[in-house]
Amino acid sequence: MGRSLSAVPDYCTRVARNINIEKLQYNYLFPEISTREVEHMKKYPNAKVIRLGIGDTTEPLPDNVALSMANYARALSTPEGYKGYGFEQGNKELRKAIAETLYKDLAIKDTEVFISDGSQSEISRLQLLLGSNTTIAVQDPSFPAYIDSSVIMGQTGEFDHGSGRYGKIEYMRSSRDQLEQLVQFAQKNGSIIIFDSAYAAFVSDGSPRSIYEIPGARKVAIEVSSFSKMAGFTGVRLGWTVVPDELLYSNGFPVLHDFNRIICTCFNGASNVVQAGGLACLSPEGLKAVLSVVDYYKENAKILAESFTSLGLSVYGGVNAPYVWVHFPGSKSWDIFSEILGKTHIITVPGSGFGPGGEEFIRVTAFGHRDNILEASKRMRSLLS
Amino acid sequence: MGRSLSAVPDYCTRVARNINIEKLQYNYLFPEISTREVEHMKKYPNAKVIRLGIGDTTEPLPDNVALSMANYARALSTPEGYKGYGFEQGNKELRKAIAETLYKDLAIKDTEVFISDGSQSEISRLQLLLGSNTTIAVQDPSFPAYIDSSVIMGQTGEFDHGSGRYGKIEYMRSSRDQLEQLVQFAQKNGSIIIFDSAYAAFVSDGSPRSIYEIPGARKVAIEVSSFSKMAGFTGVRLGWTVVPDELLYSNGFPVLHDFNRIICTCFNGASNVVQAGGLACLSPEGLKAVLSVVDYYKENAKILAESFTSLGLSVYGGVNAPYVWVHFPGSKSWDIFSEILGKTHIITVPGSGFGPGGEEFIRVTAFGHRDNILEASKRMRSLLS
Repeated sequence: MGRSLSAVPDYCTRVARNINIEKLQYNYLFPEISTREVEHMKKYPNAKVIRLGIGDTTEPLPDNVALSMANYARALSTPEGYKGYGFEQGNKELRKAIAETLYKDLAIKDTEVFISDGSQSEISRLQLLLGSNTTIAVQDPSFPAYIDSSVIMGQTGEFDHGSGRYGKIEYMRSSRDQLEQLVQFAQKNGSIIIFDSAYAAFVSDGSPRSIYEIPGARKVAIEVSSFSKMAGFTGVRLGWTVVPDELLYSNGFPVLHDFNRIICTCFNGASNVVQAGGLACLSPEGLKAVLSVVDYYKENAKILAESFTSLGLSVYGGVNAPYVWVHFPGSKSWDIFSEILGKTHIITVPGSGFGPGGEEFIRVTAFGHRDNILEASKRMRSLLS
Repeated sequence: MGRSLSAVPDYCTRVARNINIEKLQYNYLFPEISTREVEHMKKYPNAKVIRLGIGDTTEPLPDNVALSMANYARALSTPEGYKGYGFEQGNKELRKAIAETLYKDLAIKDTEVFISDGSQSEISRLQLLLGSNTTIAVQDPSFPAYIDSSVIMGQTGEFDHGSGRYGKIEYMRSSRDQLEQLVQFAQKNGSIIIFDSAYAAFVSDGSPRSIYEIPGARKVAIEVSSFSKMAGFTGVRLGWTVVPDELLYSNGFPVLHDFNRIICTCFNGASNVVQAGGLACLSPEGLKAVLSVVDYYKENAKILAESFTSLGLSVYGGVNAPYVWVHFPGSKSWDIFSEILGKTHIITVPGSGFGPGGEEFIRVTAFGHRDNILEASKRMRSLLS
């Protein structure tokens, strides 16, 4: 990070390092994987590395989506097309389109939809909303930003190296078909569920795409979501959050009211250029094009899952999701990660990076060009068969 | 907010409202002003309202800036031009351009520059960095997000209605020529300064545009800044933050290291389309065009300042800044705001919205079309002469 941590500095401020950040054990997962890749490339400068690590979209945007952003941007240089600050909560048309297109029949109002610059930023704003006097439970394995932002917010105890867990977090082993039970649990215990539906577009077997498909969820759940994986917006940055009117704190105060205050204070709206692209994704033409790219990635997932299965390995996911989890009983995730990288030049993600429940697994992403997916399957077959 | 706060709810969660958010006294300033405007428009539906409230840019972007974003967006629909996740810290070229163009001769490294989606979001991330066990001092009057995000983070005590101040915040009356003293104070006391240089482009009398012009500042200061006011990016959203290598916590740990962790965990990079626009702003052609728009607003500021001065009022700002502060001794800010709105249909900002030090003042913005500025000056003359 630019200076040796062991050098004796000639001057320090008197501001103490944030004790919550001191608790964090590792670098954030994905930058750590990038570092390992860079090291690998130094060792094997001519290797053709295939990246099946971070879930990063690879296929071009639909024409109408790119064109909408281009036209909006171009118009900003004209007196008629120039726009300054938009609403902190997002463009009204986009909020309406999300409510009507993606929450059709679920009675979500446009005023309950808040546009974000992506769900990772929004998760931290939700932490600011809830504050540090909150007890949290998290699915395990899970997206690391959930746990890390809770640690930063001071909601957790210290990290325990034996269990690989932070104190004061309840780690819930993930399983399917539990969404109804989860809502019932929240209703009984007065909890608030934060449901991340970033991969809803990949659900194809009738499983819920939104927490609000479960009866009673409006009173107990917030939903965060994103255009990243649905529409290839990982670098473009756009997401949304739903906070229903009926969700109330213990004193009867609406959560939506405070969330609106957070959005107005700690955010200033998503880029207007980008929001124009989001709106184009939800037009009938845009939606069709966007979902055909999702189908492409789903076919990738099928190819990967079948490859690992054919090698006699236990595979989870790959259906309803663009990720395949592969089980290596008795092995440590980071060891499998290193072995695969060293021998096949394929980047994966160690499952333990998503929590102790991910140990013994690696995760591979189905986001990628088809030829890379096929080449990766071939290399895996040579390594493992 | 969609439901009456007084209705008896049939179900509440058991999650307590965040006590820090309960401390906040008012709606965030600018949405509150928008609400007042909406009420005014209901009363006077045919009034030609002039908005000199929030500092919102009004003039079109330079051609090359809009075109750079448009071209980047258009290319996202091609296999060659498509990009997924970028670096959380921002595009390397943009970080380099900021360091070399805007911090020329100040020895800021590109690795010390972090690209943000605007300084309002970044201020909250800085609060997450520093945590709640921090004692803060803030200039008074100041941008309300500084104080409100400190309240949300739990760094403050309760609001005191008598003084108009929150407990545990030191309110420092603003004055000029104190930057060197401020750096010396921080050095002596081990404080960290967070310096907002969002209006640096408006400085024209040789006053510092960056805190790093002051000797020793690298060891005690973070600088947040933004393209919003420099380049008309209020709705486009782009900013940056400088964290020098030499800035250390009391235990010698580099602040940059933790800030990088926050950026990787609580943010996922600014939009790639928007960053292309930022880069175009810093080309020789872009910078020239952008600064000629700044000159236009500065001329507006001069016109407004001269109008109020000619009416015998005391005026602050309007030089080195796109805002004019007008003193109305013995009057309450919100009363002046209401009187001006009611009688001239001009939106201003009550100075007290920026802290108790702003009481008896209104602030008017110089961002606006020239004809509106001239018309506003005329109406003010009729009202006040």
